[in-house]
This record gives sequence, C-alpha cells and structure tokens, in this order.
Amino acid sequence: MSDCLFCKIVSGDIPAQVVYNGPNTTAFRDINPQAPVHILIIPNHHIEHIRDWGAYDNNILAEMFQTANTVAEMEGIADSGYRLMFNYGADGGMEVYHLHLHLLGGRMLGPMVVRQ
Amino acid sequence: MSDCLFCKIVSGDIPAQVVYNGPNTTAFRDINPQAPVHILIIPNHHIEHIRDWGAYDNNILAEMFQTANTVAEMEGIADSGYRLMFNYGADGGMEVYHLHLHLLGGRMLGPMVVRQ
Repeated sequence: MSDCLFCKIVSGDIPAQVVYNGPNTTAFRDINPQAPVHILIIPNHHIEHIRDWGAYDNNILAEMFQTANTVAEMEGIADSGYRLMFNYGADGGMEVYHLHLHLLGGRMLGPMVVRQ
Repeated sequence: MSDCLFCKIVSGDIPAQVVYNGPNTTAFRDINPQAPVHILIIPNHHIEHIRDWGAYDNNILAEMFQTANTVAEMEGIADSGYRLMFNYGADGGMEVYHLHLHLLGGRMLGPMVVRQ
C-alpha cells in the first residue's frame, strides 16, 4: 500500500536496520526497542493484521516464525529464550497496520503483561 | 506424551476450562490469568515449542491463530483488541513444553514487556 510505513521499509523507500530477509519476509530492528533484542518480522506483501488470518497463505505465517527463529539464532538469544508477539487493536497496542511479529529477548522478560 | 500436562488436558485426563475445540486445536483458560481474558491455544498433537517450527505442518500453526481469533470473538474482545504470544526458553518464561499460544485481552495491555 502506497501510504504504509512498513511497505516503504520493504521497498527501501524508508530506511530501517534490516537484519534478515526471508523469501517473503523482512526482519528489522524496532525503532523503539523494549528489550536488548527487539526485532519486527513482517510479510513483504501487505497484510493488515492477524485478526482475519485465514484469508492468506498459511505458509507466509509459518515463514514469519521461521524468520523469527533464524534471527533469534543470529542475535544469540535462541538458547536463552525469547518472546514472539502479535498485537491487535487498541487494547493490544497495535500501532502500524501492516502485520508484524515482535521478537523480544536478551534478558529475562518477566510477566507477559503489566499488572494493573 | 504420557507425562505432558497439556496432552492430558487434550485427552481429558486432567480437567481444564475448555472454551473451544478446533479440528486440531484446544483452547482453555489459563489457570493463572494475567488479564481478564487469558486463554491458551494448543495443538492437540504434542509439539514441544516454537523454536524449531519448520518440522511441522504449517496449517497447524495457522489453525492455532484461527482458533485464537475465533475465541477472541467469543470472548467479546475482537474489537477492543488483544495480544497473541509464544514464549520460548528461560528468558521468555516458558513453563510447559507443549506449544501454547497465549491470548490476552479484556483491558489495555500496556507495554509488551516490563521495563527493567
């Protein structure tokens, strides 16, 4: 999509710290990292969000996770552990509506959500 | 696996609050919920973790997400938003080594990880 930030990262029109490219995926560092390793894995073709999964090729979803696991190895966090996360909607805190998988690691990540 | 807690939930040998069954998935409430809605989605057949994805049928992974989205609708959090999460290893806080996808929602979930 012409006005999508992440599509522009895929096309190279907006710079990003790309760490890995899969056949159909791009992995780049989050501009506002929440952990020592915080990388986003996106499909190169525009998919809006995870909510309506089922309309797409299941292999793309699996490739996103394979890319994440490969990047975890590259970043040296595969053995220590990591978290893989999709956010959807306001409560999830989704900000860019191009599907992105968060890879977080590099320290003990602690609770999955902040307690109220 | 005979000594796997989640395999025993699938088989019914250990009780759980099952909310939905997909063709190859089971969704049940987390026994220690971290949010108003906290449900685990697992494949019925034993898969240890997400780290070595690639050895399995990609459709199973997609079905886990489809199950999660269906459950989000059932729980009334599809519009408000939610978080879908895999943890791997010690830093991720993985506890049971039968692949499970966390569905979290029902309130603003806030930061993805607790800041140090």
